[in-house]
Amino acid sequence: MLDVCLLGTGGMMPLPGRWLTSLLTRFNGSSLLIDCGEGTQIAMKEQGHTFKAIDTICFTHFHADHISGLPGILLAMANSERTEPLVLIGPKGLERVVSGLRVIAPELPFPVQCIELKDREQVIERKGYRITAFRVQHNMVCYGYSLEILRAGKFDAERAKAAGIPLKYWNPLQKGNVIEAEDGRMFTPDMVLGGARKGLKVTYCTDSRPVSQISAHASGSDLFICEGMYGEPDKEEKAREHKHMTMYEAAHLAAAADPQPQELWLTHYSPSMVYPKQYMDEVRKIFPGALAGKDGRKVELNFQDEES
Amino acid sequence: MLDVCLLGTGGMMPLPGRWLTSLLTRFNGSSLLIDCGEGTQIAMKEQGHTFKAIDTICFTHFHADHISGLPGILLAMANSERTEPLVLIGPKGLERVVSGLRVIAPELPFPVQCIELKDREQVIERKGYRITAFRVQHNMVCYGYSLEILRAGKFDAERAKAAGIPLKYWNPLQKGNVIEAEDGRMFTPDMVLGGARKGLKVTYCTDSRPVSQISAHASGSDLFICEGMYGEPDKEEKAREHKHMTMYEAAHLAAAADPQPQELWLTHYSPSMVYPKQYMDEVRKIFPGALAGKDGRKVELNFQDEES
Repeated sequence: MLDVCLLGTGGMMPLPGRWLTSLLTRFNGSSLLIDCGEGTQIAMKEQGHTFKAIDTICFTHFHADHISGLPGILLAMANSERTEPLVLIGPKGLERVVSGLRVIAPELPFPVQCIELKDREQVIERKGYRITAFRVQHNMVCYGYSLEILRAGKFDAERAKAAGIPLKYWNPLQKGNVIEAEDGRMFTPDMVLGGARKGLKVTYCTDSRPVSQISAHASGSDLFICEGMYGEPDKEEKAREHKHMTMYEAAHLAAAADPQPQELWLTHYSPSMVYPKQYMDEVRKIFPGALAGKDGRKVELNFQDEES
Repeated sequence: MLDVCLLGTGGMMPLPGRWLTSLLTRFNGSSLLIDCGEGTQIAMKEQGHTFKAIDTICFTHFHADHISGLPGILLAMANSERTEPLVLIGPKGLERVVSGLRVIAPELPFPVQCIELKDREQVIERKGYRITAFRVQHNMVCYGYSLEILRAGKFDAERAKAAGIPLKYWNPLQKGNVIEAEDGRMFTPDMVLGGARKGLKVTYCTDSRPVSQISAHASGSDLFICEGMYGEPDKEEKAREHKHMTMYEAAHLAAAADPQPQELWLTHYSPSMVYPKQYMDEVRKIFPGALAGKDGRKVELNFQDEES
């Protein structure tokens, strides 16, 4: 089960009643945050989330509205008595930006490790998440992220028996361990497991022009969260100029993905957009599974045969 | 007229429904901010204040809850199309802290000038405010601030006439200018003005043990805003240990000032304090003019003979 909460939906600046865009996911006791602007820690408290469980923070890019809340959240985590290392993932320069901001959070009871993305596409495995960062097109280096929870095949007792694997190795093999038996025989998980089953996938992208890589990564997602900065038809030129995208462009990206994502949530609204829902009828003509994201919108994604 | 607004009342960390402690004053079109934590810009928006008019930001010290909102507010000011210089005032090290935080706000359309406080007491005149910074006692270097609007004496036409000052110089002299007449005679404002009249004074202090300098500076204030981190009688030891003060200690500081301030607002509440008002009966036994500050509490201070 992957728990997903869109903490905020604002772009550029936090507003009364609208937090900056940020995503929190929880899987198997490990929380992951994408972006952390001014006020994200308050949004987390409003939703009842704890700071201690955050193992990973991914940053799309270094505009202030996506990272200005970092010192505050580090201190909130310190206050929660976390001692486990925290991993930060983001574009080249992450180390420099984090060290600048930590001028007001220099001492923490946990180590902070920065992973700077070097490639146009990069995969990082952490705490059960398979994180794929992919370059998008903004006015500074910016990445989208796909978060996947992979799922191994079903345990097949008949195959295990047929291969003559002693019963005591069945459980460790099912958990993915490779076993060397006392008699020197080697047993591998694929000897007892069927083909991989469908996992869970969430794709997140803000601050970009609508480029094809986004559709490619959104494909097969249970949930695709995407910037929809503007809804007014006459703002397309502005979106192009500032390297953002409109709600309609986001919907076209979802529609072009193959297979299409199950659902699309729009976010990162311009401060000038008062009521995002008013544009959704038009947006849904392009992609029927589109929803206007709102602060605190959440969903629990379950494996296909898992109880919800 | 000096407009005073306590934007937030929280200490340590922002909470849902409680912004971090920060003060905004407005005088003659010029806004001054004391401290700027995460979310202060949202608190300002809630109160309908504009960013463009902020000419001065004073920092008490560099704990994150007092300065983490700086990059966000600088960008909000940039968005308001300000081009006038901004002055930041704070303890030694200000330049280094500001430059660290500006890693995410590097380009601004206005110059930022830092004034680092060197003395235990230091006076800075700016935009009609007389700002007195005074060292207090925290676990890092920390200052309190008195903001004064001084008021010259009343214009005395009889004295101007008696001194033979031509009519055309009366107005510039009243405004404080020194005049050299065509015939070489010098006229100074004191030749046409009576004795200085009572001005306005607001004193602000958070994050300190209750030291006597605070009373000394609070004396004669129209409003004294002071930390009251704890109200529970058993938290006095904790206050002492972390170099904070209780509501009762703040009230004693107000009572000890000579002359006493007109009013005391408490602020910078511990996140553990849910309902500050519950302690006020006890606090008012020490200083009857005490009020529990709350987010957005405001007052308009007027000169004695000025219409409110």
